[in-house]
Amino acid sequence: MLHGHGDDGYRHPGRVKVNFSSNVLPGGCPPGLTAHLQACLPALGSYPEAAAETLTAQLAHREAVAPENVLVTNGATAAIHLIAQAFRARPAGVVTPTFAEYADACRANGGRPAEVDWADFAGGASVAAGLVWLCNPNNPTGAVLPPGWLRARIRSQPETIFVVDLAYADLCAEPALTAADGPACPNLLLVKSLTKRFAIPGLRLGYVLGPEALLREVRRCSPPWAVNSLALAAGEYLLRTDPPPAWPLADYLAEARAFRLALAQVEGVTVLPSVTGYFLCRPARGSGAELKAWLLREHGFLVRDAGNFRGLDAAQVRVATQRPEQNRALVEAIRQWMRSP
Amino acid sequence: MLHGHGDDGYRHPGRVKVNFSSNVLPGGCPPGLTAHLQACLPALGSYPEAAAETLTAQLAHREAVAPENVLVTNGATAAIHLIAQAFRARPAGVVTPTFAEYADACRANGGRPAEVDWADFAGGASVAAGLVWLCNPNNPTGAVLPPGWLRARIRSQPETIFVVDLAYADLCAEPALTAADGPACPNLLLVKSLTKRFAIPGLRLGYVLGPEALLREVRRCSPPWAVNSLALAAGEYLLRTDPPPAWPLADYLAEARAFRLALAQVEGVTVLPSVTGYFLCRPARGSGAELKAWLLREHGFLVRDAGNFRGLDAAQVRVATQRPEQNRALVEAIRQWMRSP
Repeated sequence: MLHGHGDDGYRHPGRVKVNFSSNVLPGGCPPGLTAHLQACLPALGSYPEAAAETLTAQLAHREAVAPENVLVTNGATAAIHLIAQAFRARPAGVVTPTFAEYADACRANGGRPAEVDWADFAGGASVAAGLVWLCNPNNPTGAVLPPGWLRARIRSQPETIFVVDLAYADLCAEPALTAADGPACPNLLLVKSLTKRFAIPGLRLGYVLGPEALLREVRRCSPPWAVNSLALAAGEYLLRTDPPPAWPLADYLAEARAFRLALAQVEGVTVLPSVTGYFLCRPARGSGAELKAWLLREHGFLVRDAGNFRGLDAAQVRVATQRPEQNRALVEAIRQWMRSP
Repeated sequence: MLHGHGDDGYRHPGRVKVNFSSNVLPGGCPPGLTAHLQACLPALGSYPEAAAETLTAQLAHREAVAPENVLVTNGATAAIHLIAQAFRARPAGVVTPTFAEYADACRANGGRPAEVDWADFAGGASVAAGLVWLCNPNNPTGAVLPPGWLRARIRSQPETIFVVDLAYADLCAEPALTAADGPACPNLLLVKSLTKRFAIPGLRLGYVLGPEALLREVRRCSPPWAVNSLALAAGEYLLRTDPPPAWPLADYLAEARAFRLALAQVEGVTVLPSVTGYFLCRPARGSGAELKAWLLREHGFLVRDAGNFRGLDAAQVRVATQRPEQNRALVEAIRQWMRSP
């Protein structure tokens, strides 16, 4: 799906004052990173490392795995598409509602992914698929499955490859699967993102962790020079300097909780639980698309219309926590929407 | 193929004084581009345009085609892999010797591409394939097929899709196919690169031109946000400002000719003709791999061992024209190699 995702402010030039539609951590990238990237601009005259060798080695060291267990990709989305390509012969199942790219990537490779409801999966329903896609914590719902349970679930179905997208694991206090799970489990691939915690989604930088045998298949689909020089430079800098996130996680999650509670106080608005900074919100008036358009027009606030997530109806929007005063302003705007005739 | 391409100086840190292994135009990127990219670094906090809408519109305008005839990609290499993925059901043929990625991309999608010798193809031999890959001007040989002949050849086999890689068309005075050929011909896709003429291969920026029906299939395989924000910013800047290349083409090609002639004077060295700045060179002593290692060790000169191009033997290296004094120094070094015991 090329359009219909969040962070589409560029389609409304000059209109967006506050962007609630992107799940990256607010606060900008670590101080020092911009200056470092500036110093790296002359490196654009050379091709990037063909297989991101330096960053691969750094990630392997950080995650305490072998370089053969790491594949650096042009964003987590590219990782998803490469995995779908490598295992296109396997019937796929997607635990929904979730990020549209798992199913889209399967379809782009000739597959017809089945949908498995999250509640059914969490309840232990079996999934008749050779490749199962799961986002944990899930986008857009903010639900998470406990790692012990999930580990057992994955091991109980060894003939199926499970792809678990951990893109938001860094923005959540609940334990998710860890890097060690990937290589240690013969039927598990973990997708990770380096751009959400450090607020650099413009650069495109993600990676896959998994057992060597599975990653070899994925690597075979990955072209040389797939990750640009500045994304590599950013990743290498972040791994080397290990900066704290712009907003301490506990404070961010506390604000997210306060934001959800305040929004839930608005009459007619249902707010769904979430373990992270984004969450679903269903106002009893109008559709998500109508609310999105109104918020943008009247207040310059951009939210994610969640109506195009398979398994969700048209009434919901996804909102990502921003700074406290901005969150309060959105609550007031939605209150106004609910009261207007 | 992840390794074995040119511009692999990063694998020999601190050793490379002059890089003859990369085919980008010497002289660096246009003045102004670095400052512009520096100003764009804050944009890394947002996702790139999901489908490179702005640059697509600019390219369509420049090439006098519709936006539906343009697909912006994460470098020309990504374009090649997307095309192979979209048309994976078609038996493929590759006109060789050539860039390894055409065949590799087909193999990554389950294909077994046939090889068609360049001389046979140029001689009119028929190609029993549903998808034919051709690099024009060709890498690594520097040979080119005349556009009129090629156009007729492509039209004579309408059930076959021809993919013509024009990555080096800007670095050659001979006429190649033009942008208009792609959309006008129902079975032709053109691959273009924006990084070679402007010396920014680190950024990854290419595009495909072709008829809407074929491009729709390729676009379906392309993930959202595939091209990073800075590559898009660079492309938009270059299209808007239309800077001249760092080295006027006529001067560059004149130096390339002088370089080839000087090298051909070295006893025991055969130099192959080329219409562009890179060319093949076959010294009667040792292998390409041995010469590459010796040049790097003794002189800090990096050349491309051409022995891994399918259809070439192990004796050749590919050399790309650099500045005159650097080219003279390489000629002297190879003379020394030929004379040494």
